[in-house]
Amino acid sequence: MDGTKAANKRSLPNDAGDGLEGKLKKAYHGNNYMKEDSDGCTSICFGLKEEVGILARTLKLFEERGVNLTHIESRPSKRIPGSYEFLVTSEAPPTELEDTLDSLKDRVTYHQILSRSHDTKDAEIPWFPRKIKDLDEFANHILNAGGDLESDHPGFTDPVYRERRTHFADIALKYRHGEPIPRVTYTEIEIKTWNTIFTNLSDLFKTHACQEFNYVFPLLMENCGYQPDNIPQLEDVSNFLKDCTGFTLRPVAGLLSSRDFLAGLAFRVFHSTQYIRHPSKPMYTPEPDVCHELLGHVPLFADPKFAQFSQEIGLLSLGAPDEYIQKLATCYWFTVEFGLCRQNGQVKAYGAGLLSSFGELKYCLSDEPEIRPFDPEKTAVTDYPVTKFQPIYYLAESFEDAKEKLRTWAKKIERPFSVRYNPYTQSVEVLDQKESLKDMVTSIKGELSILTEALDKIH
Amino acid sequence: MDGTKAANKRSLPNDAGDGLEGKLKKAYHGNNYMKEDSDGCTSICFGLKEEVGILARTLKLFEERGVNLTHIESRPSKRIPGSYEFLVTSEAPPTELEDTLDSLKDRVTYHQILSRSHDTKDAEIPWFPRKIKDLDEFANHILNAGGDLESDHPGFTDPVYRERRTHFADIALKYRHGEPIPRVTYTEIEIKTWNTIFTNLSDLFKTHACQEFNYVFPLLMENCGYQPDNIPQLEDVSNFLKDCTGFTLRPVAGLLSSRDFLAGLAFRVFHSTQYIRHPSKPMYTPEPDVCHELLGHVPLFADPKFAQFSQEIGLLSLGAPDEYIQKLATCYWFTVEFGLCRQNGQVKAYGAGLLSSFGELKYCLSDEPEIRPFDPEKTAVTDYPVTKFQPIYYLAESFEDAKEKLRTWAKKIERPFSVRYNPYTQSVEVLDQKESLKDMVTSIKGELSILTEALDKIH
Amino acid sequence: MDGTKAANKRSLPNDAGDGLEGKLKKAYHGNNYMKEDSDGCTSICFGLKEEVGILARTLKLFEERGVNLTHIESRPSKRIPGSYEFLVTSEAPPTELEDTLDSLKDRVTYHQILSRSHDTKDAEIPWFPRKIKDLDEFANHILNAGGDLESDHPGFTDPVYRERRTHFADIALKYRHGEPIPRVTYTEIEIKTWNTIFTNLSDLFKTHACQEFNYVFPLLMENCGYQPDNIPQLEDVSNFLKDCTGFTLRPVAGLLSSRDFLAGLAFRVFHSTQYIRHPSKPMYTPEPDVCHELLGHVPLFADPKFAQFSQEIGLLSLGAPDEYIQKLATCYWFTVEFGLCRQNGQVKAYGAGLLSSFGELKYCLSDEPEIRPFDPEKTAVTDYPVTKFQPIYYLAESFEDAKEKLRTWAKKIERPFSVRYNPYTQSVEVLDQKESLKDMVTSIKGELSILTEALDKIH
Amino acid sequence: MDGTKAANKRSLPNDAGDGLEGKLKKAYHGNNYMKEDSDGCTSICFGLKEEVGILARTLKLFEERGVNLTHIESRPSKRIPGSYEFLVTSEAPPTELEDTLDSLKDRVTYHQILSRSHDTKDAEIPWFPRKIKDLDEFANHILNAGGDLESDHPGFTDPVYRERRTHFADIALKYRHGEPIPRVTYTEIEIKTWNTIFTNLSDLFKTHACQEFNYVFPLLMENCGYQPDNIPQLEDVSNFLKDCTGFTLRPVAGLLSSRDFLAGLAFRVFHSTQYIRHPSKPMYTPEPDVCHELLGHVPLFADPKFAQFSQEIGLLSLGAPDEYIQKLATCYWFTVEFGLCRQNGQVKAYGAGLLSSFGELKYCLSDEPEIRPFDPEKTAVTDYPVTKFQPIYYLAESFEDAKEKLRTWAKKIERPFSVRYNPYTQSVEVLDQKESLKDMVTSIKGELSILTEALDKIH
Repeated sequence: MDGTKAANKRSLPNDAGDGLEGKLKKAYHGNNYMKEDSDGCTSICFGLKEEVGILARTLKLFEERGVNLTHIESRPSKRIPGSYEFLVTSEAPPTELEDTLDSLKDRVTYHQILSRSHDTKDAEIPWFPRKIKDLDEFANHILNAGGDLESDHPGFTDPVYRERRTHFADIALKYRHGEPIPRVTYTEIEIKTWNTIFTNLSDLFKTHACQEFNYVFPLLMENCGYQPDNIPQLEDVSNFLKDCTGFTLRPVAGLLSSRDFLAGLAFRVFHSTQYIRHPSKPMYTPEPDVCHELLGHVPLFADPKFAQFSQEIGLLSLGAPDEYIQKLATCYWFTVEFGLCRQNGQVKAYGAGLLSSFGELKYCLSDEPEIRPFDPEKTAVTDYPVTKFQPIYYLAESFEDAKEKLRTWAKKIERPFSVRYNPYTQSVEVLDQKESLKDMVTSIKGELSILTEALDKIH
Repeated sequence: MDGTKAANKRSLPNDAGDGLEGKLKKAYHGNNYMKEDSDGCTSICFGLKEEVGILARTLKLFEERGVNLTHIESRPSKRIPGSYEFLVTSEAPPTELEDTLDSLKDRVTYHQILSRSHDTKDAEIPWFPRKIKDLDEFANHILNAGGDLESDHPGFTDPVYRERRTHFADIALKYRHGEPIPRVTYTEIEIKTWNTIFTNLSDLFKTHACQEFNYVFPLLMENCGYQPDNIPQLEDVSNFLKDCTGFTLRPVAGLLSSRDFLAGLAFRVFHSTQYIRHPSKPMYTPEPDVCHELLGHVPLFADPKFAQFSQEIGLLSLGAPDEYIQKLATCYWFTVEFGLCRQNGQVKAYGAGLLSSFGELKYCLSDEPEIRPFDPEKTAVTDYPVTKFQPIYYLAESFEDAKEKLRTWAKKIERPFSVRYNPYTQSVEVLDQKESLKDMVTSIKGELSILTEALDKIH
Repeated sequence: MDGTKAANKRSLPNDAGDGLEGKLKKAYHGNNYMKEDSDGCTSICFGLKEEVGILARTLKLFEERGVNLTHIESRPSKRIPGSYEFLVTSEAPPTELEDTLDSLKDRVTYHQILSRSHDTKDAEIPWFPRKIKDLDEFANHILNAGGDLESDHPGFTDPVYRERRTHFADIALKYRHGEPIPRVTYTEIEIKTWNTIFTNLSDLFKTHACQEFNYVFPLLMENCGYQPDNIPQLEDVSNFLKDCTGFTLRPVAGLLSSRDFLAGLAFRVFHSTQYIRHPSKPMYTPEPDVCHELLGHVPLFADPKFAQFSQEIGLLSLGAPDEYIQKLATCYWFTVEFGLCRQNGQVKAYGAGLLSSFGELKYCLSDEPEIRPFDPEKTAVTDYPVTKFQPIYYLAESFEDAKEKLRTWAKKIERPFSVRYNPYTQSVEVLDQKESLKDMVTSIKGELSILTEALDKIH
Repeated sequence: MDGTKAANKRSLPNDAGDGLEGKLKKAYHGNNYMKEDSDGCTSICFGLKEEVGILARTLKLFEERGVNLTHIESRPSKRIPGSYEFLVTSEAPPTELEDTLDSLKDRVTYHQILSRSHDTKDAEIPWFPRKIKDLDEFANHILNAGGDLESDHPGFTDPVYRERRTHFADIALKYRHGEPIPRVTYTEIEIKTWNTIFTNLSDLFKTHACQEFNYVFPLLMENCGYQPDNIPQLEDVSNFLKDCTGFTLRPVAGLLSSRDFLAGLAFRVFHSTQYIRHPSKPMYTPEPDVCHELLGHVPLFADPKFAQFSQEIGLLSLGAPDEYIQKLATCYWFTVEFGLCRQNGQVKAYGAGLLSSFGELKYCLSDEPEIRPFDPEKTAVTDYPVTKFQPIYYLAESFEDAKEKLRTWAKKIERPFSVRYNPYTQSVEVLDQKESLKDMVTSIKGELSILTEALDKIH
């Protein structure tokens, strides 16, 4: 029995599996954390009919009433062309904002209250990012970042490691959308940890990973420095992914809430750790680390269909009630983290939790675990352990099929609007006015025109 | 007769009109310039079937044959999923690259030769940027940048002005995609020039500009510092446009060739000057300046339909033969620069050359000029003066109508492929394989699914 | 000067041109006729929520209130799946029907009042056929059918001809949808008339008719007996057209109102005469006859794009206000009857009035008449003579372009609903509920699925 | 125990279940029958470039070579606009036709050999109907029609019944497309049989039938004479279905082969028996009869989604290899005949074999049988008994879902072309040329235009 297997095996009785993300799950579902999220901030998004001086007058109105706005933004409305759209944010309660809005009621064409507080009322919708820059607001909404490790963490008593973790957390906390991700010089010890993992897994990929993974992996080696003796830089990887599917990485200082984490996916943004696990246990990590991200997640995000599937989960989460956030997070767990798929009659792994774990990657394709067809209705309410190998895996027929199933199931989410991602503006458009639907139809017709032209020219 | 009118009138006999872009046109069509563009660089884009070790082997092949590659890139192919796509660039002639490629011929699924040299042969296509980052390559392909003014330029004898121009040119030359555009502290003299122009034009906009302009202008005042005593920063304006339509500004050091300039539009990138005209003649400029860009171009780029129209011109230009580049540039001239449109039965200006020129804005809606319906067939071959008010204007029924007309006409462009812009990856996809068409159809179906869901929820 | 030309020329001073349809136009626009159309019949179409026994109960309700229904029909609603749709018709005034409907108001999901009386009120819509069988109702709504000729008709004093006309009128009056069109044994005299016209025109077609005409004509000769010595049978021609585009012919006893005639086109049904002009003037007819239909109209109806264009006029007419019926009839006149089109840089005739008139076919491509681009806005209000060659013709760029222009213009028609033709049920679906739009989107997605599959298999 | 149950129960040991279609299955899959189908007829469909005189010349060519054509048809080609399409049929072997075609090879744009003989070679495709009229050719391709009953048939020894069956067979044998279905005066005995079945089943429908069934059934009672004491006329029912979904009934004299029967569905034509079972066993029939058709099939064909699903099976069958015909027939068996579906969390019956059998309708929703999710991959190869209640049923999530699953699975059918049904011409279009795809895209764009207009007007 070689060391890897041993390490792997050993982790099981410890109730903290190799590559399993116990903390992540705790963060996802822990009530504690959700409470911290309530910072009482309210946003109102409203449309105003075009009118001379309406912009200045509106701002003045809030001022006169003493409503302290922390953010104000006016834009052309995409919901009703010809309206102006305002997004105002305040720490005041929703009612105060609404009252002010009332005085404009003849000119308001629509409005929507987004609330970050937990006890949203009927008319309120849980706050969600509308444009990619809004993801900057998550930066400080994190759980146990930096060197603040829990007592059962392998690096808990290692001051050098803890300092290193604090360094990585700082990078992430300072990071703002649009900036390049700072390059990191990894230490020799860190590279050695990576080397162990990289080398062990490499052999397994050909037989155990899905074909999308194996197709992309050589490209990552050519383009992004995926080598046994080199830890790739997030910036290089992010740029590569951007070219492939528009996905980008964003450094994160600690664990995000499920709501925030999934919201990132809606923008094709993956919140990625940059630090590496403790060198004492190279085959084990109680939380996601850069090995998990780079070896598990990244290759799949380079695949267009998988990228779409991941974004779909994200889009469905925006403004959804808490109950559905939990269900979507569970679907995420059983697909993006621990998903299996069928390819040419064989079962293969595509979940990052599997692809970054030597032990579980072998186990998942063995006879031991139970394999069920992916069915969001059931998958979304399946309980799962966070510190052991999974007893149940869900099998997707294809990423597209999984996406379609998710969409069909998601019709049940009680959300009074649909959303569409506009990749040009990197923003989420709310579809609750027929004007926006007409724009969609026009854009589809445009696509069909391109199709006609292209048909003329195909080989 | 007030000063403005005088200046305006005076410019006419001088063969250099207020707000007219003689130099621009010269740059567009001058044979001289086009020759400078021939730097002999060749790119080959080719697909290779997936195969173990194929990436490394391919690179080695070029090396062994002594072909010096200045750039090499491997990506997942979007044309034939499952192929790898290579983009290699070399200063060697096309034949040398092709020969090497020949030795791979069993594995090559498609290939395309892009050439920057002028005398492209049958199988070659004029080089064009494939992703937004490629626009960085234009930075040094510019005509008379910086303080190098021509003798008839109002600032020719002004060393301070010339130094200033050099400063602005430096900013642009150093600029790379993804960076914020450096903020500039404009001098009092510069602000005064802006003030004169801003104040004069403001009154005219309500009556002479199209409604899209007047709808956006107040938003620019609220959000981007459009004020008589403040020259807006390109970075702020670019961010605002990004939110509205995904258009961004990119500082440019001097004049680009038509081919390069139009190519930028394909990516919704507008190459913008940052300097201001000489203070001696505030109502006149022999070349585009920041007033022309900010007052003329920017408001329209915030309109989704206009943005689409502009991008369409850009997309049609990619890889087109020189003859068509000239025609497209002429269409650009008669629309984006000098276009009129019909709105509620009235004729209004939407061209930037008009909206940034007090004199021509009044003139264009007078009885003097001839107005013809926009018809690319005819518009594209209409001759025009570059130093006087235009004798002929073309009238668009709407931006969408203009886009459709352009598309219909453009079917004549002899280009062996169609293109589609992928806003996620900010890259141009070449549609010449049926596999890519299938992906398009799938994506359209996805759009329709969103539409169905949204129909359930519209008010 | 040959006889043909002479005959042709002679007809002009007589104020009744060769192939011109004076009577048709009079019928189209004559106020007299429109009044006859007012037979006071009212239909109400309404939706009822599914409920046990609702069908029987509804009928009883009308009975109890003494409302005499001439027609009653219950069907699955296509507007709101899960509703039942009723169509009841009565000679009672709308109010009486509405009152009864009122007593069901909790269960009525939508309703629409269709009225055949002339003075429709706000809530009422001019009656229109909903399914192809409804065209049977036009059979008796005709103007001067059969042997009842006007005094200036060439056959006015010919009792044999008049009897023959009565015979043809009888066939049409008895005809019902779905039946084969009775075959007619034409007399030698009739065949001679046809022969003269056929022979004269044949030579001209190659040079003067559009390519769609010349492409189809040989097929009509092969398949439908288009020969100098044989008058084709409407039934054979109708079956051929059915195979090509789904258009069918329907014998008509006399002139229909514009509203009725255009409504036929909505169903791809062309009301065709079966009699032939008087033998005394083979090159002249004051009204449409079988030569005009077979040589002028039929070949074009075999072309898919032209068929679509014609149907579009028909669909736009359904339930439109009288004012728009007149405009659409004028568009019909300048396209289907007297249209010119551009093909490979040359002007060609596609209008039936031209293609069936030796004189006007030559004249229309000469320098004499004025040719304007087809533009429904202007075309629809152009005055035209009915007894002379046209002084103005309108030129279509293509049938598709004409259709698109028509559609764009038609957005102005004040009709509180859109319609869509369902070729499976041969009925018109009213689109005024979002449920029906969802069905459309689903059906479009189905089409796209077929497209994807087909892309796999194209050569 | 009432008579019904008794009859029902008794039928089981007899190996001939109530409402089960043993003979149908035998006909579907029996090799005997398939052989009879080989009548050696060959059709070639080919395209010819437009050229003066090409039609006449082509026909002459066949004549000169002594190829005896039983059918010849020339039409505008829908595959390559501008080509003529010929369909020639001969009893000669394919080679002979091909040879003649060879002499035209410069002008042939495409060709396809359709063969009715069993041993089709590589380039040949099993013959299939191209237009609805072609279904007339099936009329004589039937198994044991009329009074020719098998010895175990309840009516075997009843000469009156056998004569009656011969009468019904005659109606069907003489029937041609487009004619009304002859009305039948059913005898008192026949009506009594109907009454027994109708009365027994009526009570069960509310609880056991799917909602689409229960929604339509009252409409059939109102419109088509579905009453205990009246057997509805096929003609009335067919007209009603035509209004609902475009489905029509066509009388059939006996059992068709699977290939022929499924081909009918492609045209939304259902081959329906008109006779009724023997009065001695009203609750049992060894073959489909008018009760099975009217009570089992008809209500579902009035539902748009079910109609689409059924047509899809038909379209997939056209020209498919024998192996797939059998699989599709099995899918048909487990859906249209014996399908269950889930509705509001409950399982309901929609298969006609269930809905027309009192015994099996109760049994299928009991705990006894096994219920599996509909999955064409598995369903298509499931074995089933034909003379007993089914041990396994397949459950569809919805008709649309079933259709999608079928389509996905059907990509495996080795057919070198896709097909699309054109409901205007009631013909099947072969999609194997990119020109036809362009037409599809154009038509989809047209649909989207209608959608845009309709969005403006929805309530």
